[in-house]
Amino acid sequence: MDVKAYMATVGQQARAAARAIGKAGTGTKNTALLAMVDAIEASRDTLMAANQIDLDNGKKNGLEPALLDRLALTSDRIDGMIEGLQQVAALPDPVGALTDMTYQPSGIQVGKMRVPLGVIGIIYESRPNVTVEAASLCLKSGNATVLRGGSEAINSNQAVAECIRKGLEAANLPTNTVQVIETTDRAAVGELITMPDYVDVIIPRGGKGLIERISNDAKVPVIKHLDGICHVYIDGAADKDKAINIAVNSKTQRYGTCNTLETLLIAESIASELLPVLAEQYQVKGVELRGCEKTCAIISGAIPATQEDWGTEYLAPILSIKVVDDIDHAMNHINQYSSEHTETIVTENHSLAQRFLREVDSSSVMVNASTRFADGFEYGLGAEIGISTDKLHARGPVGLEGLTTQKYIVLGDGHIRT
Amino acid sequence: MDVKAYMATVGQQARAAARAIGKAGTGTKNTALLAMVDAIEASRDTLMAANQIDLDNGKKNGLEPALLDRLALTSDRIDGMIEGLQQVAALPDPVGALTDMTYQPSGIQVGKMRVPLGVIGIIYESRPNVTVEAASLCLKSGNATVLRGGSEAINSNQAVAECIRKGLEAANLPTNTVQVIETTDRAAVGELITMPDYVDVIIPRGGKGLIERISNDAKVPVIKHLDGICHVYIDGAADKDKAINIAVNSKTQRYGTCNTLETLLIAESIASELLPVLAEQYQVKGVELRGCEKTCAIISGAIPATQEDWGTEYLAPILSIKVVDDIDHAMNHINQYSSEHTETIVTENHSLAQRFLREVDSSSVMVNASTRFADGFEYGLGAEIGISTDKLHARGPVGLEGLTTQKYIVLGDGHIRT
Repeated sequence: MDVKAYMATVGQQARAAARAIGKAGTGTKNTALLAMVDAIEASRDTLMAANQIDLDNGKKNGLEPALLDRLALTSDRIDGMIEGLQQVAALPDPVGALTDMTYQPSGIQVGKMRVPLGVIGIIYESRPNVTVEAASLCLKSGNATVLRGGSEAINSNQAVAECIRKGLEAANLPTNTVQVIETTDRAAVGELITMPDYVDVIIPRGGKGLIERISNDAKVPVIKHLDGICHVYIDGAADKDKAINIAVNSKTQRYGTCNTLETLLIAESIASELLPVLAEQYQVKGVELRGCEKTCAIISGAIPATQEDWGTEYLAPILSIKVVDDIDHAMNHINQYSSEHTETIVTENHSLAQRFLREVDSSSVMVNASTRFADGFEYGLGAEIGISTDKLHARGPVGLEGLTTQKYIVLGDGHIRT
Repeated sequence: MDVKAYMATVGQQARAAARAIGKAGTGTKNTALLAMVDAIEASRDTLMAANQIDLDNGKKNGLEPALLDRLALTSDRIDGMIEGLQQVAALPDPVGALTDMTYQPSGIQVGKMRVPLGVIGIIYESRPNVTVEAASLCLKSGNATVLRGGSEAINSNQAVAECIRKGLEAANLPTNTVQVIETTDRAAVGELITMPDYVDVIIPRGGKGLIERISNDAKVPVIKHLDGICHVYIDGAADKDKAINIAVNSKTQRYGTCNTLETLLIAESIASELLPVLAEQYQVKGVELRGCEKTCAIISGAIPATQEDWGTEYLAPILSIKVVDDIDHAMNHINQYSSEHTETIVTENHSLAQRFLREVDSSSVMVNASTRFADGFEYGLGAEIGISTDKLHARGPVGLEGLTTQKYIVLGDGHIRT
């Protein structure tokens, strides 16, 4: 297969389909999404058989158990895909919304219309349910999509793609609205991220290594999320119960997510009272504690943190703890080590809360709430394609609106500029 | 001079200054802007003397008269700089605005806060007044700036920079909030666009060649504008007077601007009636007409357009004209040749106007108005740093809001995720 020529064809087809899906009505798009539900429901056996081939190949190739688990399309996960499609169909359509229509001194009326981005390329790792999730969010927001899943999931993804195509056909939408790349050749990724004429934005979903590689080589804008080095700062004026609940929940509710707490900062005035209580709770849950000198002096079970710890996203039951003088000291630490994902202050002091909200430059800044809330569903977006730690375009959890842009609309009545 | 080390220092200083200017109050920022006015007012002679050195060097180096004219800091242009600063001081401050604060089922309150981008790098060509314009817009929106003007304007820009520094000092803001690069070494640009740790976004202002070079080499996001191949489509249901006024104004009000009409599309049903009238008006103004076959059959003075004409931004008194069957034919042409800057339909038909607004994918889409309105001032933005033909982040005229981003704010009362 000539990958370059194949990808150029995929790109041209996507660009052509983008025009059709961009002007499709909400009802048509919902019809397609619900027809995909029917197709998946009718293809459960086919999907699981295709997935079994991938699982068998994976075992043969020595894929790690954790990866095999992510690859598996169980009956529960197929239910999840169906539920996801129904949820996206029920979400409001962001496309076409007009805002800020105001008359200008010249007499023209100017405002903004929300419109699709065009063609979105999505590169992801082994989970085949991402295929449906990404396709449905891009479709509802009026975009054409080119999906490139992990090579270990190729059979599962192609089976899912067939269900997606049936849904598009049922709504008389071009089947090229969603294209799942048919080759596992890595060169296809290189082509996808360097076709600005055909692709408007790339969204990589996967480990940091994958995302860094893509960002470095892309000639198309990338909406991405690298690290999630999140902080909780327990201020001297914190309510102690809230502080303990938030610090424990932020770290232990789930360990492998990007919005999990990695470094706890605590004001010196309250450290000797709270740290022993916190340490006990963390130790019950099996969290390893790595502390600064002052922390280790208070908690006997903590081991000394190295410089590297402050810049590490553990994604594991490990927590670094630092005693700080005050909010300025805490914000300096955050400023230096945070990945600008999510930070929380626990305090009852209004002025300090306001300063933290204003001055901490992260995609989510919180007062008296667990970092684990940084999530599209919890924020009321209805769904999310990912979390962006970029500053431009979309920041934080990215829902349907993040997959659109705006254009200016001008209404005149024969107005000319003088 | 070690350019790499120099630029790294500039970058570090900008990043440090960004924290201070990001949290500065509106009053402080306005104080700085108005103190810059005082400094410029007091430095008229110094500014013009510095500019004279640049002009003399330019003449010696054989700079073209048009470039020498753009380089000149006349008394009028200094007045313009002062007026610009006063206007920016009077604009509302976008920073800190909270929107969409809503309670979620979990009990947390989620919304967005508008915040500065951080450090903005601006690369521009000879006009020294851009130095003040760019610095003031970035300052008001809470950003630190690194400015790199044309080497032929180095003395003028450094004299302007001194006035900016005085203004910052008067408001007790760090003078590194605005840094004008002191070397004319081209390697400085290469460094500026590849320092993602220190620079959040690059805005190039200048010719297409400059912008393409920067976009290709940048490792930092770029907000840019390439071509302005703008279209007016005169529909069969157009009001004839409005059509003539708009088509003439869009082309002839100014020739060298990016929102100037370059290709006129006209419905066949109305072409033989309107084209002769239009041709007469264009010919009076000295506009050369290049037409499709049907156009040339109607207008004797038109010369045949080549394929290249449809994709050319003339920036000159030249207009290409094409007779089309209907709105679909017109939109297909626009889809193929437009640079996605600005397109107008002239029609009295409501449904066709709505289709054009919805389906044309350009940064500005207009009904019955001159393309020349595509401008930050005309849109009520108060000022503009440029016009973006990118889709992500900022699209169309970019004012203060385009120089900011948003972060999510979460307010809880000890809320944890269950």
